[in-house]
Amino acid sequence: MLSTRRSLTVEFGHCDPSGIVFNPNYFQWLDFSVHALLAAAGLTLKGLVTERGMDGIPLVDMKAKFFAPSRWGDVLDLEVGFAKLHRSAFEIEHKVWNAGTLAMEAIETRVWTVFDHEAKRIKAKAIPDDIVALFTGEAKGD
Amino acid sequence: MLSTRRSLTVEFGHCDPSGIVFNPNYFQWLDFSVHALLAAAGLTLKGLVTERGMDGIPLVDMKAKFFAPSRWGDVLDLEVGFAKLHRSAFEIEHKVWNAGTLAMEAIETRVWTVFDHEAKRIKAKAIPDDIVALFTGEAKGD
Amino acid sequence: MLSTRRSLTVEFGHCDPSGIVFNPNYFQWLDFSVHALLAAAGLTLKGLVTERGMDGIPLVDMKAKFFAPSRWGDVLDLEVGFAKLHRSAFEIEHKVWNAGTLAMEAIETRVWTVFDHEAKRIKAKAIPDDIVALFTGEAKGD
Amino acid sequence: MLSTRRSLTVEFGHCDPSGIVFNPNYFQWLDFSVHALLAAAGLTLKGLVTERGMDGIPLVDMKAKFFAPSRWGDVLDLEVGFAKLHRSAFEIEHKVWNAGTLAMEAIETRVWTVFDHEAKRIKAKAIPDDIVALFTGEAKGD
Repeated sequence: MLSTRRSLTVEFGHCDPSGIVFNPNYFQWLDFSVHALLAAAGLTLKGLVTERGMDGIPLVDMKAKFFAPSRWGDVLDLEVGFAKLHRSAFEIEHKVWNAGTLAMEAIETRVWTVFDHEAKRIKAKAIPDDIVALFTGEAKGD
Repeated sequence: MLSTRRSLTVEFGHCDPSGIVFNPNYFQWLDFSVHALLAAAGLTLKGLVTERGMDGIPLVDMKAKFFAPSRWGDVLDLEVGFAKLHRSAFEIEHKVWNAGTLAMEAIETRVWTVFDHEAKRIKAKAIPDDIVALFTGEAKGD
Repeated sequence: MLSTRRSLTVEFGHCDPSGIVFNPNYFQWLDFSVHALLAAAGLTLKGLVTERGMDGIPLVDMKAKFFAPSRWGDVLDLEVGFAKLHRSAFEIEHKVWNAGTLAMEAIETRVWTVFDHEAKRIKAKAIPDDIVALFTGEAKGD
Repeated sequence: MLSTRRSLTVEFGHCDPSGIVFNPNYFQWLDFSVHALLAAAGLTLKGLVTERGMDGIPLVDMKAKFFAPSRWGDVLDLEVGFAKLHRSAFEIEHKVWNAGTLAMEAIETRVWTVFDHEAKRIKAKAIPDDIVALFTGEAKGD
């Protein structure tokens, strides 16, 4: 399965009056990681929408565990990878490391959607085979 | 068990280029709800730290499900309540309603901690009985 | 000139390790205020775009002065009003009060833009007369 | 005068429904730049507070001009440097470049403060000479 990693420095403004990262910031970073993972597959959300008729990959489930606080100045190492691919949904796994310690981990599920012009609403659709091949890492993105 | 609710208008700036709420904003609102729940118990995090020797209630687990997107201008109704009390941890349940539809729900677990001056680190401690009574709603806060 | 006001409670998560509001949050609140001011004129950015061919009101200038810090739990009173209307630009004035003390004030300038299909880029355009009448308060919005 | 620069990729979640950076995010990045500038001087806010008796460098004035929108995926180049040093205040200048175009620029003023234990409030104080030397670049930080 395709995965990637990048690092990030915790800024003063990411922290709350306790001096540790305000927890919603982790979820912002996880979202950035999802886009980094698409980029590692040679894809962008914008390209999928404009060129592939995809309507979005809405988050439907997020399970996160927090093991250790991160503080201002800490350099975090963010690992992200596809974990499971279903017919029209996929799971992404995140691990956030802080100086060798696992600070938090999460599994999120997103759905591949298209816009149903008859029903006038979005609906789940099977992830196209070539996209599956990019997600598994069998095919290489540009 | 004690619970409370409040409402919130989704702002333009809460939404992403898809036109729907950028998902980390929900986690920010859930954190605000936790403080609203403490307030409903007549408590503040600051007061617990300065008057009760508590060191914080770090988030250790978050499980969220998203059912429907929220859009700019939507008025959300945020329900929050204590769900389960353990010896030194407690679960808080959130439901976010959008015009009668459940937009998302979450269960988070937080731990009651004190600072262990010998070990020089925080540790979990039993939630004091009078605080338990406020969380269950058996006692009334100021 | 049209003006409006609303209040807001400073949350734990709005504050930084110094215990005071992390300054970028003020700019987020000012942006929310701009939308509240449009609403007071019976307008929405979305409606102006879809019904009036407007392309946006990009911020081009922001001047802010900070007089006193705001802290977690403080209830802020946000005043916002049109200050000056130019041909294709307008100034909005903000005052943020904290328990009767002026915490910060700002003047921002935004431009009324339309999309120039020939040049394929946005350009400033004169604010329509009926919109000017709503901004000055001479006409009433719905 | 001391200056530094760093780059940053605009994320999907930094943008609003117009598809451009939600303007308060710029102010967040400017704050991160201030800390990067202190780091370039071999200083941290935390160190100044704990080792030098400084109480903070509150922002008192921010003047920003926005010239061009930034979009999701754009790589921004953030320049930051000391502009003017006064007795107890200092000005920091920011320029944000987007692919060679100046996207925005800002001048902010911050005050060097200490806590006045008699008056029980913070007050402005002259910036220490060795700190001035680091800010001007005459001395080198660690």
